[in-house]
Amino acid sequence: MHTFILRIKGAALDTAYVIDTLFTLFSITLIILMVPGFAMLEAGLVRTKNVSSVLTVNIMIYAVASMAFILIGYSLAFGELQSATMSKWAFFMFQMAFVGKAINIMSGGVGERAKLLPLALFTLIMGGIIYPLVVNISWGMDWIKDTVFDLNMVDLAGSTVIHSTGGWALLAAILVIGSRKGRYVNNQIRVIPASNIPLVVLGAMLLWIGWFGFNGGSVGSISTKEGADSVALTIFNTNIAGLAGAISAGIVTYTRYKLFDITMILNGALGGLVAITAGPHLYTLYDSLLIGLIGGVLVMVAVPLFDRFRIDDPVGALSVHLINGIWGTLAVGIFAANAAEGITFFNQLKGVVEIAVFVFTVSFAVIYAINKVIAFRATDEEQQQGLDVSECGLEAYPEFKRAI
Amino acid sequence: MHTFILRIKGAALDTAYVIDTLFTLFSITLIILMVPGFAMLEAGLVRTKNVSSVLTVNIMIYAVASMAFILIGYSLAFGELQSATMSKWAFFMFQMAFVGKAINIMSGGVGERAKLLPLALFTLIMGGIIYPLVVNISWGMDWIKDTVFDLNMVDLAGSTVIHSTGGWALLAAILVIGSRKGRYVNNQIRVIPASNIPLVVLGAMLLWIGWFGFNGGSVGSISTKEGADSVALTIFNTNIAGLAGAISAGIVTYTRYKLFDITMILNGALGGLVAITAGPHLYTLYDSLLIGLIGGVLVMVAVPLFDRFRIDDPVGALSVHLINGIWGTLAVGIFAANAAEGITFFNQLKGVVEIAVFVFTVSFAVIYAINKVIAFRATDEEQQQGLDVSECGLEAYPEFKRAI
Amino acid sequence: MHTFILRIKGAALDTAYVIDTLFTLFSITLIILMVPGFAMLEAGLVRTKNVSSVLTVNIMIYAVASMAFILIGYSLAFGELQSATMSKWAFFMFQMAFVGKAINIMSGGVGERAKLLPLALFTLIMGGIIYPLVVNISWGMDWIKDTVFDLNMVDLAGSTVIHSTGGWALLAAILVIGSRKGRYVNNQIRVIPASNIPLVVLGAMLLWIGWFGFNGGSVGSISTKEGADSVALTIFNTNIAGLAGAISAGIVTYTRYKLFDITMILNGALGGLVAITAGPHLYTLYDSLLIGLIGGVLVMVAVPLFDRFRIDDPVGALSVHLINGIWGTLAVGIFAANAAEGITFFNQLKGVVEIAVFVFTVSFAVIYAINKVIAFRATDEEQQQGLDVSECGLEAYPEFKRAI
Repeated sequence: MHTFILRIKGAALDTAYVIDTLFTLFSITLIILMVPGFAMLEAGLVRTKNVSSVLTVNIMIYAVASMAFILIGYSLAFGELQSATMSKWAFFMFQMAFVGKAINIMSGGVGERAKLLPLALFTLIMGGIIYPLVVNISWGMDWIKDTVFDLNMVDLAGSTVIHSTGGWALLAAILVIGSRKGRYVNNQIRVIPASNIPLVVLGAMLLWIGWFGFNGGSVGSISTKEGADSVALTIFNTNIAGLAGAISAGIVTYTRYKLFDITMILNGALGGLVAITAGPHLYTLYDSLLIGLIGGVLVMVAVPLFDRFRIDDPVGALSVHLINGIWGTLAVGIFAANAAEGITFFNQLKGVVEIAVFVFTVSFAVIYAINKVIAFRATDEEQQQGLDVSECGLEAYPEFKRAI
Repeated sequence: MHTFILRIKGAALDTAYVIDTLFTLFSITLIILMVPGFAMLEAGLVRTKNVSSVLTVNIMIYAVASMAFILIGYSLAFGELQSATMSKWAFFMFQMAFVGKAINIMSGGVGERAKLLPLALFTLIMGGIIYPLVVNISWGMDWIKDTVFDLNMVDLAGSTVIHSTGGWALLAAILVIGSRKGRYVNNQIRVIPASNIPLVVLGAMLLWIGWFGFNGGSVGSISTKEGADSVALTIFNTNIAGLAGAISAGIVTYTRYKLFDITMILNGALGGLVAITAGPHLYTLYDSLLIGLIGGVLVMVAVPLFDRFRIDDPVGALSVHLINGIWGTLAVGIFAANAAEGITFFNQLKGVVEIAVFVFTVSFAVIYAINKVIAFRATDEEQQQGLDVSECGLEAYPEFKRAI
Repeated sequence: MHTFILRIKGAALDTAYVIDTLFTLFSITLIILMVPGFAMLEAGLVRTKNVSSVLTVNIMIYAVASMAFILIGYSLAFGELQSATMSKWAFFMFQMAFVGKAINIMSGGVGERAKLLPLALFTLIMGGIIYPLVVNISWGMDWIKDTVFDLNMVDLAGSTVIHSTGGWALLAAILVIGSRKGRYVNNQIRVIPASNIPLVVLGAMLLWIGWFGFNGGSVGSISTKEGADSVALTIFNTNIAGLAGAISAGIVTYTRYKLFDITMILNGALGGLVAITAGPHLYTLYDSLLIGLIGGVLVMVAVPLFDRFRIDDPVGALSVHLINGIWGTLAVGIFAANAAEGITFFNQLKGVVEIAVFVFTVSFAVIYAINKVIAFRATDEEQQQGLDVSECGLEAYPEFKRAI
C-alpha cells in the first residue's frame, strides 16, 4: 500500500511537471510572437526609407540577445540550469524569450538613425551581462543581492526588470546618439507620420496577445487549482489594463483633437499593458481598470513632454515602457500593499530607483564606449537617403512610387 | 483509506480544473487573434483612404465591447460570476472574447461611410445589453426564457448567436446609414477593388485559426476522454468546413469567370466556417464537408444578390455571416436531428427566426435613435476625401503615391 | 482494492490521453499558422504584379492538399484512422497539417510563372498519393517497406520527408517549367528585388513559430516526464538552430557585402530550422548550434550556385529546404549516431537517396504529364503583365502607383 501511495503521488507530481511544461511552452510561443509584434509595430511607425533597417535590427536582436543570454547570461542570472517543477529546457527558453524585449524597447526608440553594427555589440553586452544582472537581483538567486543590493520589490513580469530597464537604456542611448536629422529645427518640432498603419495595428495586437504569455507564464505554475486561478486572473487583469489604456488614450486624443489617432490609442493600450505587468496576480478587476486608465493617460501626457525636451523617440518607447514601467511598479505598492508581507510603496520605489541608477549608468557607459569605437549614428547623408540603402542595400517597398 | 480515496478524487478533480483552465486560456488566445484578423481583413478590403478609420473602429470595438460586457453585459447573460469546472477568470474572459465579434461583423459591413463616435455608442449598447440578452436566451441561465422565449435551438459556438446576430444588426445599420457615395449610380454597380490583398489573406487566415479556439473552446471541457474527443472532432470539422468553403467558392469563381478571385475564395472559406459553427461537435467528416461546400456556394450566390438589392456591404459580411449563420443553424436540424433529444429542424428554424426578430428590431431602433443624435453617415465630402482624414487625422500609407 | 487501483490507472491513462490531445491541438494551431507564414513570405518576395497569384496558390494548396490527404492520402500513409494515445481527430488533423508544407516549398520556387490550374492538379496528386507514400515508408506502417524499401533513417519531423521532398519536387518542376522571363539574359543574371520586406519578416517569423508545433508535436507525446523533457528539448533546439542560422547568414552577408541583407538572414534562419528538423530531440545545445550555423552558411553558398546553373528559384526554396533537408538528415548520422541503435550515417544517407530518387522521378513524370495537358508556364505576355491579372483578375495593390 505504501509503495502504491508513493507511486500515485509520483504520478500526480509527474502530471504537474507535464502540465507546467506544456503551459510554459504555450507561454513561450506567445512571447516569441512578440518578435514579429515589435518588428511590425516599428516597421509601421518609421518612414519607408528606414523600414528594412528597423526590421533587420529586430531580427538581429532576437538572434544575438537570445544567443548571448543562453551562452553567457543565463548562468549569471540563475546559476546552473535546473528546474524541479518543469522541464529545464522549457524554463531555459522561457527566460531566453524575455531578454530581447528589453533591447527591442531601446532599439525602437533610436530607430531611423542608429546603425546595426554598434547596436549588435550593445545587444551582446545587454543580453549577456546587463540584463542578466538585473534579473539576478530581481528574480534570480540573489548572489549580488546578499552583498550589494537588497531588492525587495514585487515585479511579476517586469514593469521594471524589462520595461524600465529597456527605457533607461534607451534614454542613455538617445543622450549619446542624438535625435534624427531634421526632427527639431529652429525651435520647431517636425511631425514625421507613421508610414504603414496596418502594420502598426498588427504589431500592437501581436504584442498584446504575447503579453498573455509574458505575464501568465511568469506566475510560474498552472498545475494546481490555486495556480490555475492565479494564471487566469493574471491574464484577465493584463487584458483589462490594455483595454483601459486604449480607452483612456482614445478619450484624451478625441477630447484634445476631435480625432481618433490610432497610433496614440495603441500606445495607450501598450502603456496599460506595461503598467499592469508588475502585479497582475495581485489586483482586482477595478484596480486593473484604474491602473490601465492611468497608463493610457500617462502615454498621452509623456509623448509631447519628451518632445519638449528634445528627446527624439520615433515610436514613443519612453512614454510606453519607461514611464509606465515606473508607474506599474509603484502601483503594486499602492494597490497591493496588503497582499503579502513586505510589499510597501517604499520597497517598490527603492527598486525602481536602484534599477534606474544601475541600468542607466552602465548602459550609458557601454553605449558611450561603443560609440567611440564604431559610431552609432548614421551620417546626415545616410539618414537623408534612408538607412535601408546604407545598412541593408535594399528598399522595403522598391516598387511603390514615393509621394513624399 | 476513505480519506485517501477522497484525496485522490480531489486531486483528479483539481487536474481537470487545471486542464480546462489551460485549455480555455489557449482558446481565448486564439479568439483574440481574431481581433487583428478582422482588422487586417477589413483594412485589406477597403480603399486606402479609409484604412486607418476601419482599423481604429476595430480596436475601438475590442476595447469598448469587451469593457461593456465585463462591467454590464456578463451579469445580464450569466448572472453572478462563478465557475465550478475551471477558473472563473478564464470563463469570464472566454465569454468576453466573443462579444466583439458580433459587432465586428456589423462594423465591417458599414465600412467606408460610418463614423466612429456613433459606432462606439452602438458598440456600448450592443456589447452591454443586446448581445448579452441574446446569449442569455441561447446559452445563459434563461431568466428571460422562462418568462418570454423558449429557445431550444442547438448553436454550439454561435452561427446564430454571433454571426446572424451581427448580420441582422448590420442589415439594420445599412438600412439606416445607406450605401457608400458613388457605389450605385444610374442603375450601375461600381466595383470598388480591395486595396491590399496580402492583408486580406493574413486577416482571413488569422480568423480561420482563431475559429479553432472559438468552436473548440465552446465545447466547454477537454478534461475527460469524451471531452478531448469532442473538442478534437469540433476543431477537425471546423477546419474541414473552411477547406470545403474555399474549394467550392474557388470552383464557382473559376467556372463563372475563368479567374481565381482570392477575395471570394477566402469569403467562401469564412462562409464554410460560419456554417459549421452551430454543430461541429455533432457532424461526421462528410456532413462537415457538405455543409462547408454549400457555405462557399451561398457566399458566391449571395454577394451579387445583395448588390442587386442595392445593399452595400464592402466586405461581404452579410453573405458570409448572416446567410451562413442561418444556413449553419438550420444544418444542425438537417444533419444532427438524431444526435440528441430535442434537436429538430423546427426548433432550429424557430431559434433563427426569434433571434432575427429580436436583434433586427432592437438594433434598428437603437441605430435609428443614435443616428438622430449623432449622424452615423460621413458626409459626401468626407467620403470623397476618405474617412482617415476626417476621423483619424492621419493617412494609412502617407508615403505611397496614389494611382487612383 | 484491485478495482480501485484499476480505476486510478484508468484515470491516469485518461489524463495522458487528454493532455496529449490538448498538446497536439496546440501543435496543429502553430503548424496552420505556417499557412499565412508561407503566404506572407512569398507575397513579400515576389514582384507586386504576382502577389495575388502567389497568395491564391498558397490558399489553394492548403485547401486542396489537405482535402486530398484527408479523403485519400491518410489511409495510404497510415491505414485505418485510429489512435490509442490521443483523440484520433487530433492525430488525423496533425498529419493533415503537414501535407501542404511540402507542396508550398515547390510552389514558392516556381512562383511568378507557374499557373494555378496545373498546380492544383499536381497538389491533388502530391497530397493524395506521392507525399502519403513518402510518409508511409518513413513514418507509417511500412506496408511498402516490407516489400520494396527498407528505410531505417531517423527523421523526426521531416528534414527529408517534408523539406527535401518538397525540394526534389521543386527541382523537377523547374526543369519542366523553366525560369522566369527575363531572369537570365545574355549570360547575365537579373536581380529581381523583393517587393515587400515587412511581409517577408512577418512570414518568416510565423514559419519559425509554427516550427515549434511542427517539431515539438512530432515527438508524439508530452504526457510523461520523459515526454515533456523531450518535447521541451526539441523546441529549444529547434529555436537554437534558427537563431544560429540567422547569425551565420548575417555574418556571411556582412563579410561579403558590408551590408545586412535581411532576406538572406531570414533564409539563413529558415535553413537552420530545416536542418535541425530531423533530430532535434537527440541533440545537445552545441550540436544544435553547429547544425544551425552550418545551415545558414549553406543557404548563403547555395543561392548563388543555383543561379549559376540557371535554376531560377525566386524565394530560395531549394537552398533553404532541399540543401538543408539533406544536411539535416545526414546530421543525425553525425551528431546522434550513438543516440539509439540503428542510427548510422549510412542509413541516413540511404534514406536521403531513396526518397530523392522516388520523389524526383515520380514528381518529374507527373509534372511532365500535367504540362502536356495544361501548360504550367504562363506565356511571356502574361508574365510581363503579371499573373495577378491573368490568373486572378485583380491586382494586389491597385491604388499604389508603381515606380518600376
